[in-house]
Amino acid sequence: MSFRGICALSLLLSVAAQAADAPPANAWRTVDPDNLVLIDTRYGQVAVELAPEFAPGHVERLRALIRAHFYDGLSFYRVIDGFVAQGGIGEGTASTKDHPIEAANLSKWPPLKAEFDRASSPAPIFSPLGNADPMAPDVGFEDGFAVARDPADKREWLIHCPGTFAFARDNGPDTATTEFYIVIGQSPRRLDRDLTAFGRVLAGMQYLQKLERGDPEVDSGVIADLAKRDPILRVRLASDVPAGERPSFQVLRTESKSFADMVEARRHPTSPFYFRKPPPVLDICGVLVPVKRP
Amino acid sequence: MSFRGICALSLLLSVAAQAADAPPANAWRTVDPDNLVLIDTRYGQVAVELAPEFAPGHVERLRALIRAHFYDGLSFYRVIDGFVAQGGIGEGTASTKDHPIEAANLSKWPPLKAEFDRASSPAPIFSPLGNADPMAPDVGFEDGFAVARDPADKREWLIHCPGTFAFARDNGPDTATTEFYIVIGQSPRRLDRDLTAFGRVLAGMQYLQKLERGDPEVDSGVIADLAKRDPILRVRLASDVPAGERPSFQVLRTESKSFADMVEARRHPTSPFYFRKPPPVLDICGVLVPVKRP
Repeated sequence: MSFRGICALSLLLSVAAQAADAPPANAWRTVDPDNLVLIDTRYGQVAVELAPEFAPGHVERLRALIRAHFYDGLSFYRVIDGFVAQGGIGEGTASTKDHPIEAANLSKWPPLKAEFDRASSPAPIFSPLGNADPMAPDVGFEDGFAVARDPADKREWLIHCPGTFAFARDNGPDTATTEFYIVIGQSPRRLDRDLTAFGRVLAGMQYLQKLERGDPEVDSGVIADLAKRDPILRVRLASDVPAGERPSFQVLRTESKSFADMVEARRHPTSPFYFRKPPPVLDICGVLVPVKRP
Repeated sequence: MSFRGICALSLLLSVAAQAADAPPANAWRTVDPDNLVLIDTRYGQVAVELAPEFAPGHVERLRALIRAHFYDGLSFYRVIDGFVAQGGIGEGTASTKDHPIEAANLSKWPPLKAEFDRASSPAPIFSPLGNADPMAPDVGFEDGFAVARDPADKREWLIHCPGTFAFARDNGPDTATTEFYIVIGQSPRRLDRDLTAFGRVLAGMQYLQKLERGDPEVDSGVIADLAKRDPILRVRLASDVPAGERPSFQVLRTESKSFADMVEARRHPTSPFYFRKPPPVLDICGVLVPVKRP
């Protein structure tokens, strides 16, 4: 019986699968446990790597919120299929039932200064994707994160791809406080450089995809029925987890030759599956930076 | 308490939400029940609209398979997070346990001739998106489907966006038989015009997102443990469902002024949420064609 496209199609997904050689050990970077956030859902654990160089104020706030157990027992109260899963206190009547404002002690968490972008890094920290992007003058990778930048003002920012972690905000730029969202659908690039994105999911996207959805046409996607909201069971920094049970992740260095080779193999696939060679143009959000658990 | 970006962010998702006026009744097209496929999963029902004009042979085959109850009791045996959910018989040892080859009577379903593309439609059937696309010379919408085309050879094809329905195949172009896949992640545009895509999900993406995943690094993402595969409970054509329980869907006519207005409102958002106006460039897979159930 034929594979019916199974084997061949699978080659199209993984960058790593197209590499001629396995990356050497020194091509992998072990994620700093101070930057590794573990979100326990009822479906499984989601691991997020933070990018403190892009948003030091937000990372400091998030670590403090996590260590204050702020999120434990809160919920994913606004989950829009194909867009984002938003977690935290919630809003309005629902929020006061879900997590009394007084208990949340919101005065401890005043609005943050926006960190939409930062000064561009020099090469080799920035590794260009190698083709034009529809939304930004230049795109590439830094330390495993998808990054866009503008040579005109020498600023750079994290791109909204599936798995990007960011803080929600109100209408002003400096209004984020405690609420976070994670992209679970087609890259909403229009949010780039207009919200503070400062992390990405390394593992567990499939658990976020199981979260109960809201209706985007009703109350902005907020799930009115508290009983239907999936809880945030617990959020921890890996550095606070006892060594024996602390998960460890390695990310392929995006400045390595191994990664560059993989990107080019994806750009010019040699698999016999392709009847028609695809255009040699990659979507920055379609290039998955390899992650492994050693 | 502020909305913390809830209201504002939600505006970014829905094309319809940005329209000044609700579309008139005649801007909606009722989906032909002969083109409406209902896939029952244990999480809920997925509705797919077929595009017979793009792939008449595949649509005919799919209708015949459905009416032979071919898929009922089979499974989603290869589900890769961020990529595709593939359903049907499966392969190898697993498949013979799952659905004996003899019972499947595969000789009834010989390989299909590829229908990767077709002759381009004239305007106004084709409504251009209005900006360049990284992967194709021209992109736009036809009857609610995202379509790419090449003016050089006057051919057009359905784009692989989240929700696109297609048949898997083996290494040759004319090798599809019975297995289908649905895109559940970032648009895998490199598959465009290289597999036969001929439908899109109108409702129920959130149920596909709950499907048990395989590991793309192991056996091409095929779930080895049959007990872990989520079943395809039943697949029906809406035209075979008794009128009283037959769901009905309407799709906004993509050649209507209402849709054009919505696209332009999305391109140039006026929401005060935007601190920085996004570039006036839309991703064809980020523009959701409105669907409603009357």
